[in-house]
Amino acid sequence: MNLTEFLGASPGASREGPHDRIVLSSRVRLARNVKGLAFPGWAKKPERVKALELIRPQVEGLPQMTGAYSGSMDALTALERQILVERHLISREHAARSVGSGLVLSRDHSLCVMINEEDHLRMQSLRRGLQLKAAWQAVDEVDTQLEERLEYAFSRELGYLTACPTNLGTGIRVSAMLHLPALVLAEQMNQVITAVNKLGLAVRGLYGEGTEALGNVFQVSNQMTLGEGEAEIVERLNKVVAQLIEHEENARATLLEKKPKMVFNHVGRAYGILANAHSISSKEAMNLLSLMRLGIDLDCFPGSQRPLLDELFTATQPAHLQRQHTEKLSADERDLLRADMLRAQLGPVARPVMPPPPATPDAK
Amino acid sequence: MNLTEFLGASPGASREGPHDRIVLSSRVRLARNVKGLAFPGWAKKPERVKALELIRPQVEGLPQMTGAYSGSMDALTALERQILVERHLISREHAARSVGSGLVLSRDHSLCVMINEEDHLRMQSLRRGLQLKAAWQAVDEVDTQLEERLEYAFSRELGYLTACPTNLGTGIRVSAMLHLPALVLAEQMNQVITAVNKLGLAVRGLYGEGTEALGNVFQVSNQMTLGEGEAEIVERLNKVVAQLIEHEENARATLLEKKPKMVFNHVGRAYGILANAHSISSKEAMNLLSLMRLGIDLDCFPGSQRPLLDELFTATQPAHLQRQHTEKLSADERDLLRADMLRAQLGPVARPVMPPPPATPDAK
Repeated sequence: MNLTEFLGASPGASREGPHDRIVLSSRVRLARNVKGLAFPGWAKKPERVKALELIRPQVEGLPQMTGAYSGSMDALTALERQILVERHLISREHAARSVGSGLVLSRDHSLCVMINEEDHLRMQSLRRGLQLKAAWQAVDEVDTQLEERLEYAFSRELGYLTACPTNLGTGIRVSAMLHLPALVLAEQMNQVITAVNKLGLAVRGLYGEGTEALGNVFQVSNQMTLGEGEAEIVERLNKVVAQLIEHEENARATLLEKKPKMVFNHVGRAYGILANAHSISSKEAMNLLSLMRLGIDLDCFPGSQRPLLDELFTATQPAHLQRQHTEKLSADERDLLRADMLRAQLGPVARPVMPPPPATPDAK
Repeated sequence: MNLTEFLGASPGASREGPHDRIVLSSRVRLARNVKGLAFPGWAKKPERVKALELIRPQVEGLPQMTGAYSGSMDALTALERQILVERHLISREHAARSVGSGLVLSRDHSLCVMINEEDHLRMQSLRRGLQLKAAWQAVDEVDTQLEERLEYAFSRELGYLTACPTNLGTGIRVSAMLHLPALVLAEQMNQVITAVNKLGLAVRGLYGEGTEALGNVFQVSNQMTLGEGEAEIVERLNKVVAQLIEHEENARATLLEKKPKMVFNHVGRAYGILANAHSISSKEAMNLLSLMRLGIDLDCFPGSQRPLLDELFTATQPAHLQRQHTEKLSADERDLLRADMLRAQLGPVARPVMPPPPATPDAK
């Protein structure tokens, strides 16, 4: 089965999870290397190929990987690699790799092991909503089982050795993808980023390091991997995310109280454009889908529309649009097809209504 | 009856006319002065009051003015004056005048005589669509009848004397208000303006001299009033307007053929925003109403919606919004009320459809 067939046939990850109004996904990834093999960035091609041949069967053999997709990166088309990036299953860096790098992706897409990315092993667990602990437990099990099959590069003093010192020690990166439109509308996001940075956490855009916060989506993750246990890191991030949820909820409540028309103006215009445009860029679509998603959270649209919105976030990305067509599309052509898809999907959605102000207890 | 009651009770001008897809209105105005009286800009207040007292009864006495509104400018509220400007019935300059200036407005609003504007008499005839000749004939009759009752300042060599030399001679200004969205979208409007200027005609914005071309509406008028007969001027403008209609129709056909998606993108977005925004400025509303009106002309919406659109062009203007409220509205408050009106009126209009390409004769 090639990857396109695999992605088409597999059920994919669950579309629901705790706090998924604000937390789109939780992710934990571990970086590991095999003792005695050169790091991928240093190794020559034959060494990388040898390392891949050694590691891949061990990953494939894990019980969690029953029915998984497994392949070398050079077996994937550029389009397939881009689709994996748009689904946040592999890094942009890994998508650029070829012979000597590989990928094992579990049947439900919740576990993904990149082989010969920056490190020999980058294992990640991805969950819907706020499920950092569950994500960590899942990837921890993979790690424990692989450690029985492969000898990791490990130092008693430094912990797990990694290609880049920023991952040294636990090799863990815990992150949550947050939808924070009200903090952006209330112009509080820069403050929030500064505060989160002071806690030693990083705030990044939609596709990780150095990317833009499209669609009001921000990724919060730990910076340090040394001097703190994995459980502590997960717990710390969990607390900060809980605070960010509260900040976003407060910002929504305040906006609704002080500037309801401003909020509904954004939501209404977003819907109006998405449901009626005949050409729309990926960036504009994401930003408007974000505002429409906020409208769902604020009861301007029925909550039953949320899965559709979330699906459109991904389905309107360039590679996802391209895969439905045989001929290579230009950016302009994609803008037309994206608008066609959005009109078809959102046109039937009823126009937003401004919900009445919350009833007081007496009025009930 | 005060002006507000008069405007509410009167049937108003017809909403249909020849070529009204593109020509919104035709207007002819004549500037005249009474011999022996100082020009209004030179006259002292008592002289202006005296001139008004002399002239107004003569205008009121015309058979065309049966059932007309007649009043001194100081009897009008600032809001009423602004409403007259928004309906193109009086000039901005006249709206700023007070004691010693007056106005006589026919029952159907098609004839309006300003007294002591820049000249003693500014008589204008306003018609829907392309009706320059009819408009001229109507105002010419008023002029002929008034000339029997008042002695005009006239020179055998120079013709009718006027306060500003640009009106000297015939004192005529013939103008048409054109809706030219396709020429704007095709970025041909600057070329057109240059060409029209070379013919000795002026192209101005929505509210005349020195105003912006909001809503893709342009006013074309003669520049010269000397050395050419009134009928010739009307005929020349008529020909140029006919050419502009053809240019606009060609631009529409070309856009539909070469860039249909671009056109429908503009039309769809305009509708989407108008029908769903909760705050919108006058300027944005005019520009979007213009694009939606183009959509009606292109059969994206039923033609039965055109009168509604044309009404909204005026009804969303600041003074028209204000008159529905007793308390003084701020610009921000008007933006909210304007959006409320547009959502209520345009929300029930079905979403635009892209019409099929024109059928070839064989396909019929």
